[in-house]
Formats: sequence, structure tokens, C-alpha cells
Amino acid sequence: MSATALDPALADRLKRDEHGLVCAVVQDATSRDVLMVGWMDDEALRRTLSEGRVTFWSRSRREYWRKGDTSGHVQWVRGIALDCDGDTLLVQVDQVGAACHRGTTTCFDGGDLPAVVIDPQERRA
Amino acid sequence: MSATALDPALADRLKRDEHGLVCAVVQDATSRDVLMVGWMDDEALRRTLSEGRVTFWSRSRREYWRKGDTSGHVQWVRGIALDCDGDTLLVQVDQVGAACHRGTTTCFDGGDLPAVVIDPQERRA
Repeated sequence: MSATALDPALADRLKRDEHGLVCAVVQDATSRDVLMVGWMDDEALRRTLSEGRVTFWSRSRREYWRKGDTSGHVQWVRGIALDCDGDTLLVQVDQVGAACHRGTTTCFDGGDLPAVVIDPQERRA
Repeated sequence: MSATALDPALADRLKRDEHGLVCAVVQDATSRDVLMVGWMDDEALRRTLSEGRVTFWSRSRREYWRKGDTSGHVQWVRGIALDCDGDTLLVQVDQVGAACHRGTTTCFDGGDLPAVVIDPQERRA
């Protein structure tokens, strides 16, 4: 078995976007917080599956980005699942420190939008 | 205030892809399962924020898709947050029935990939 390419059977299941990427949702395996979303190509996924640490493809910098190499905020892999249509990964991790570059626990902290929430008693589908 | 367009201040914060879309991660507000990922344009987000139910833009069908209108598997909004770089939404919901069209609780059920998990005692960043 080659360690230099993604398993072809898995590669066949991926439905990549026009840039060759799938979406990767990262969730803290313990707190179950959704921490962030990144992007992976086949090689980033191969590294993530085989190294025990999460590697993304940075769309802005156009390079591989192993989370924590610069910040120390490593994401240790606890599990990875592919969704039903093959275009999204759910990566369960043990997060070291803050997931967000701003120093917050998640990239969604402080981002609440004003949403209408219908009272459960009033819900009619 | 117009109800026919997304709040311009919010629209300014969105970093849309080349198709005018942002990624929307849907999480069950109670179980905290990540249920699915969909896509929203400004109008889908406006409807989702104002109606109390989740509407996506279907990239394959090229139309708005209010979750549950066909299946009955409604997603009632509990909260919405925008991430730090403005290209991803986290939508907390009360999910009625199965989130996945296959009848499973989430779109990731049954999709586990073989990932190396490093024992916490052996982790060296």
C-alpha cells in the first residue's frame, strides 16, 4: 500500500469543488463545539488520515497548512467521517488551545446574528 | 426597515465564494450533533434569519430549498453565528426527524473513514 497517495477507493467517493477541495467541519470531540471550517484536497486528507493531526489546504495562501505548526494550537484527530454526498468531512479533534486565530475557542465566538426564533408552542410547519 | 433584502451591514460582512454563497454548518442545538452542511446566498440567509426555519440554496437544483417543505424534516432555528472571516455560518437548530435524505440522523452517519488516532500519551506536537 502506497503512503504517498490517497486510497483510490476513497478518492473515488470525494465530490470535489472546481478547485479540487472538500469542506472540512472541525468539531471538538469532547465539548462538541463546532470550532471552525477549513478545506482539504486529496493530499490534505491523506495527511490528516495518516498523521493524526489536521492538515488543511489554505485557499488564500495556496499551501498546505498543518494546524498548530505556527500557533501551537494543534488539532489531534479523534475521528473523520465523509458525508452522504461526498463533499464534506466532519473531523472530530482534541483541540490544543484556541481554535481561532483571534484567540477565541471557536471561529464563531462573538459572531451571533439576530435571528427570529419561533417559540416551540407556536411552531407550525 | 425593508424585509426584502438582507441587512446591508450584515451583507458587507459576508465573504461569498465565486457563486455568491457561504457555507452553512447545521448543528442540533440539543444533541450537538453536526447534522449537515448546506449553502446560502444573501436571500437564503435573509429568509433563515427572519422566518425561524432554515432555507438553503441548492447548488444542484439551482433553487431555494426550505428544509422540510418536502420531507417534513423541518429545521427550526435556535441561533445563527457568522465566523471570523465571514465565509461560514453555524446554524443551531431543533431538527424534526432525520436531517439526512437517507433517513439517518446526520449526513455523516455511516461515513467513518480509517484515521490514525495518536494515543494522548504519545502526542508530541
